Amino acid sequence: MKISGRNKLPAQVKEIVKGAVMAKVVMDYKGEEIVAAITVDSVDDLGLKPGDEVTALIKSTEVMVMK
Amino acid sequence: MKISGRNKLPAQVKEIVKGAVMAKVVMDYKGEEIVAAITVDSVDDLGLKPGDEVTALIKSTEVMVMK
Amino acid sequence: MKISGRNKLPAQVKEIVKGAVMAKVVMDYKGEEIVAAITVDSVDDLGLKPGDEVTALIKSTEVMVMK
Amino acid sequence: MKISGRNKLPAQVKEIVKGAVMAKVVMDYKGEEIVAAITVDSVDDLGLKPGDEVTALIKSTEVMVMK
Amino acid sequence: MKISGRNKLPAQVKEIVKGAVMAKVVMDYKGEEIVAAITVDSVDDLGLKPGDEVTALIKSTEVMVMK
Amino acid sequence: MKISGRNKLPAQVKEIVKGAVMAKVVMDYKGEEIVAAITVDSVDDLGLKPGDEVTALIKSTEVMVMK
Repeated sequence: MKISGRNKLPAQVKEIVKGAVMAKVVMDYKGEEIVAAITVDSVDDLGLKPGDEVTALIKSTEVMVMK
Repeated sequence: MKISGRNKLPAQVKEIVKGAVMAKVVMDYKGEEIVAAITVDSVDDLGLKPGDEVTALIKSTEVMVMK
Repeated sequence: MKISGRNKLPAQVKEIVKGAVMAKVVMDYKGEEIVAAITVDSVDDLGLKPGDEVTALIKSTEVMVMK
Repeated sequence: MKISGRNKLPAQVKEIVKGAVMAKVVMDYKGEEIVAAITVDSVDDLGLKPGDEVTALIKSTEVMVMK
Repeated sequence: MKISGRNKLPAQVKEIVKGAVMAKVVMDYKGEEIVAAITVDSVDDLGLKPGDEVTALIKSTEVMVMK
Repeated sequence: MKISGRNKLPAQVKEIVKGAVMAKVVMDYKGEEIVAAITVDSVDDLGLKPGDEVTALIKSTEVMVMK
């Protein structure tokens, strides 16, 4: 199955912090930190834990550019 | 000046395609492709062109995780 | 592979309109119309065409509620 | 009043979970589950509760397609 | 009808540029410029034209802060 | 440094509420209230507090129009 979202970054989960509704997932992507704010339900559904090899998915309309 | 957006990836502009309103900016980050869909106005305002060293900015609420 | 995005609606592609950068994909989900604005690159990469059975994916932080 | 957001899905609230800042609103849309992550302030402002007939509003630029 | 989106700014349409799929709507809010990138379908559906009194709607999860 | 995000609204922080992962930042923008839902990490990183003069940053693809 293919996904229209253009940005798929291979990363490793470093840290997960859970709140009541939202969770923070900190990942390492080639030495840069990537942070995702997703629901706690998603963390549980995927069984996310530190060390997991994952892919960060980002729609291109959500990416800004600074110069 | 600091920005709340958590994800700031250093990248190099590889290709720009302009439509009437939106533009596609393809960037390279350590061998991975990052694509941004921003307005043509932004491309012109920043004077973006292939070869430019830029930073891709992404709010953490826009990042999904696949496993 | 599982995706953190919570909303996955099975739908059928009805119409595709391509611009220079962005494309409109109109889908049908049980009689309701769902519209996605994605890149033309994504349409081409997935080989999207009218009649295709697809899944509309939406992150929960992007959903508003009206009452 | 009309809204530019293209996707307006009639749904029924099934469950609400409140955190300190964000709330999860689980809705039923023709047998499919739709989840919204909105602020607790919004839940209180709309007086949302299970059983409410609502409309899920999603901007087309936030919809991805999987095939 | 109430909308969960927290940010509703009264504005006046100054300029509209249409592409094949996306349109740029430039608005004025008390001397500041607000730009929306919405579908051409939305512009047509709302009958948007320069001079219109409108409301810019923004979900709070889409707002960043710079300091 | 310039940012592609088109909407940069000068505002003043009025109130901050922190959850475990997400924080609500309420700002005043020329008499209108602007609310941002950002990570607690961002609030701490920027040292945000009531009274701060800040800029609300919003990508144009995230702005809807109501008429």
